[in-house]
Amino acid sequence: MLKSPLAQARLHYKPSLPSLLSQIDAVIFRSITAEAGVLPEIAAAFPEISSFSLLKGEGSLRAKRKIPLRVGVVFSGGPAAGGHNVIAGLWDALRTLHPHSELVGFLNGPQGIVKNQAIYLTQDLIDSCRNQGGFDLIGSGRTKIETSEHLALALAAVSEWKLDGLVIIGGDDSNTNAALLADYFLQKKSCVKVVGIPKTIDGDLQNRHVAISFGFDTAAKTYAELIGNIARDAPSSRKYYHFIKLMGRSASHLALECALLTCPNLVCVAEERKTLAEVVSLIADLVVARAKLGKSWGVILIPEGLIEFMPDVAALIQDLTLQGEPSSVSLRVWDQLPQKIQHQLLKERDPHGNIAVSGIDTEELLMEMVVRELKNRQFEGAFNPVAHFFGYEGRCALPSNFDANYCFALGFVAAALLDQGYTGYMAFVGDLKKAPEEWSFGAVPLAQLMHVENRAGKIKPVIAKALVDLEGNIYQIYKKQASSWRLEDHYLCPGPIQFFGNTALINTTPLLLN
Amino acid sequence: MLKSPLAQARLHYKPSLPSLLSQIDAVIFRSITAEAGVLPEIAAAFPEISSFSLLKGEGSLRAKRKIPLRVGVVFSGGPAAGGHNVIAGLWDALRTLHPHSELVGFLNGPQGIVKNQAIYLTQDLIDSCRNQGGFDLIGSGRTKIETSEHLALALAAVSEWKLDGLVIIGGDDSNTNAALLADYFLQKKSCVKVVGIPKTIDGDLQNRHVAISFGFDTAAKTYAELIGNIARDAPSSRKYYHFIKLMGRSASHLALECALLTCPNLVCVAEERKTLAEVVSLIADLVVARAKLGKSWGVILIPEGLIEFMPDVAALIQDLTLQGEPSSVSLRVWDQLPQKIQHQLLKERDPHGNIAVSGIDTEELLMEMVVRELKNRQFEGAFNPVAHFFGYEGRCALPSNFDANYCFALGFVAAALLDQGYTGYMAFVGDLKKAPEEWSFGAVPLAQLMHVENRAGKIKPVIAKALVDLEGNIYQIYKKQASSWRLEDHYLCPGPIQFFGNTALINTTPLLLN
Repeated sequence: MLKSPLAQARLHYKPSLPSLLSQIDAVIFRSITAEAGVLPEIAAAFPEISSFSLLKGEGSLRAKRKIPLRVGVVFSGGPAAGGHNVIAGLWDALRTLHPHSELVGFLNGPQGIVKNQAIYLTQDLIDSCRNQGGFDLIGSGRTKIETSEHLALALAAVSEWKLDGLVIIGGDDSNTNAALLADYFLQKKSCVKVVGIPKTIDGDLQNRHVAISFGFDTAAKTYAELIGNIARDAPSSRKYYHFIKLMGRSASHLALECALLTCPNLVCVAEERKTLAEVVSLIADLVVARAKLGKSWGVILIPEGLIEFMPDVAALIQDLTLQGEPSSVSLRVWDQLPQKIQHQLLKERDPHGNIAVSGIDTEELLMEMVVRELKNRQFEGAFNPVAHFFGYEGRCALPSNFDANYCFALGFVAAALLDQGYTGYMAFVGDLKKAPEEWSFGAVPLAQLMHVENRAGKIKPVIAKALVDLEGNIYQIYKKQASSWRLEDHYLCPGPIQFFGNTALINTTPLLLN
Repeated sequence: MLKSPLAQARLHYKPSLPSLLSQIDAVIFRSITAEAGVLPEIAAAFPEISSFSLLKGEGSLRAKRKIPLRVGVVFSGGPAAGGHNVIAGLWDALRTLHPHSELVGFLNGPQGIVKNQAIYLTQDLIDSCRNQGGFDLIGSGRTKIETSEHLALALAAVSEWKLDGLVIIGGDDSNTNAALLADYFLQKKSCVKVVGIPKTIDGDLQNRHVAISFGFDTAAKTYAELIGNIARDAPSSRKYYHFIKLMGRSASHLALECALLTCPNLVCVAEERKTLAEVVSLIADLVVARAKLGKSWGVILIPEGLIEFMPDVAALIQDLTLQGEPSSVSLRVWDQLPQKIQHQLLKERDPHGNIAVSGIDTEELLMEMVVRELKNRQFEGAFNPVAHFFGYEGRCALPSNFDANYCFALGFVAAALLDQGYTGYMAFVGDLKKAPEEWSFGAVPLAQLMHVENRAGKIKPVIAKALVDLEGNIYQIYKKQASSWRLEDHYLCPGPIQFFGNTALINTTPLLLN
């Protein structure tokens, strides 16, 4: 792929590494046994890996590796900025551990493992993607390796490539998959280790040890740039209400992060679990109150997952899923919905038969219902709503310095884990609010991240999605400010991500870490 | 308005000025009389200002101004990045010319003149908006000053404020308005001078002297950032066709500029005047040809004005405008249109009764028709189209260095013109591909930019919109590359606008200048 001048310049950025990792030859992991055990269902589903302990990275002089490492890597699911740096970190670490180590890239997601489609990565390929966005070096995909046939094919592939380890770069479901593979390989007495890397712009892959997934920071900053620009447009043009839907699946992390960066008039935090009528009423109140101040413009953020959390709409969705039509109770909500949305609710299904909320135009639903509500209230002012949806714009951006550094470190941690023969772990990097040199690192057993969920009628072990915690810091910080955003315009314009100059401007960390 | 850390940092950027303008005390204008005359209709409509000559800025020692200048300024129409710098330049120049000069900002567009709503601008207000996006310092609006009643009110307002001059920052229609005011003030023996500033992100306000309007560069770079990110997402996710509509009214300048910055698979240049069927067929051909290479993704740019230029759709629109329904000829196109688009064509009208193409979802029209076309061709591959529209995201961004410098210089030129008593002119800055220090400047008589147009049945003098010239440099540069973009993926990721560091990265000039 050709490079723009900025992309070219970014090739030469040297990510900052945690000091310990910059001497990868002297990294060991200490086992922390005090961790709580896993659920019995998880222990049953993952007999081989469920008793593992938490690992903490440390420095210690030890013998130099004599035999090269052979590692496979795969991207799984939607792209997130920094993926290429995980691979670059992995490469640099593996080659430092032994100059003849090899890195194999499975193509186009997990299906590349099943179909055994892979390439050797080379120094030139790695150097061409340093600090670049996208997953295009080896592509990604959403196939899952779940059936026994697929597991066997995966084992055959990694064995044929004579791999010591496999690194799976993915979100919650992909890391559940990593656990499945790790356990299966052990069951089959294979010596191939499996390590997962926390990827997703959605920010819902968080736990006690993994403070954030990579890609979140760049996506949030990219969306915030656009929201800030639109917010500045609002009092300049003085005539539009911007309804901005943001990607992020169920959780509202991205919307909340963007809100704190831009101070819109309203954010519909999904986890507040308001009904559709309550949200519509809230927006109508805002429009009426602002109109009294002569303001016929505004900016409203809408997380993609909003309607899932509305108790009335959730009940309707359940009725549609189970019975194919609304019940007598959910009929009341159904009848209020614009025809287009009714159609989408009947049509948009994911592979499990669940309604895919990403296919529902929530922003247009709210716009239309607010128009109706204002009419009912006999509102006579101007209300010109404009819909936006930001998602694909932020998944493959040039990674921010934070994501570039973080991903590079994650690649090093994965290499260190495989070097020491660990499997069934998710690599993590900690103390992320400090300077990268001071970051800590370690690994959490995948089994410890799991709970059981009912998915389309089947009880399945999966990694829990982290929602916005209404008692948590970020939500509380937001709550303190939000009321002053409604009528006064405190819009902030964070501007485009900067890569050069003042370190205070270019090395900011995500607010989610607060 | 509060400021983000980057916005704060940008406050301190010092725009580079043309060397001559940095000594505004020593600027004069030389009259160039060799220019072609104006049309007879224009001479009749603007009796006072139609015989003016082109002005070229020069340096010459002259007496220092003894009396302060009093100037009014107004934003007209949609925002464009850099507007605040025009005002800052105007302020700095006026205060250099005389420390007691005053600048009055009319509020919320030309209606602020008619209603006489204005504020004195102060050093603090000016310093708070340097190098910031938006028009929010004084707001903007779309009212036109056309009726004799409005003209009289305008004269009363500028007289009440005891202004020497009025600077109108706007696009083609707003500058037509500036001409009207300039002529009217002279007719009424008022000594208030009127100067126009070429503003519009659309890039359609261009002529022999005005190479580009301000805001185009920032908007194009902001959209190109997003298009580049989406383009990088395409081969990463490997499953979407992105249909990206871009703001820009009739002309395709923004789409073409963005195309050259990002190399998408296809750009539907409106000025090529293909029929709807031809465009649909072209896209279907692309999908089929790429599918044969295993590529089920792609990026297609669509200028906002595309359907206006389709001969078959244009005929339909004319029938709908004149008769309210399709004729027997245009019925064929009408019947092919999705219901939603039919509805939009009947509903979306501008204040003149013309169909407002910006309200037509051209991107969705094409997506739906391509789906149908592929079905007719019995195409069996995957085709998942995703619609995007970028517009408001780029109008109020932090201005690029180019726009920041250019606007600041335009403010100086306007001040110099008013200082010397010129009226009925549009300020311009030339040689924009050179370093700012070497930029030339001058002013072109507004009357010389005019031609006559039939607008909703009335013959009106207006400033001609510059369309993409299919014989011009930019289109030819595009044409040479475009065929290689179709099947090979040459996507470029220009990344976010940078403000610090390597001057080759931060001081790029728009390709439109080629």
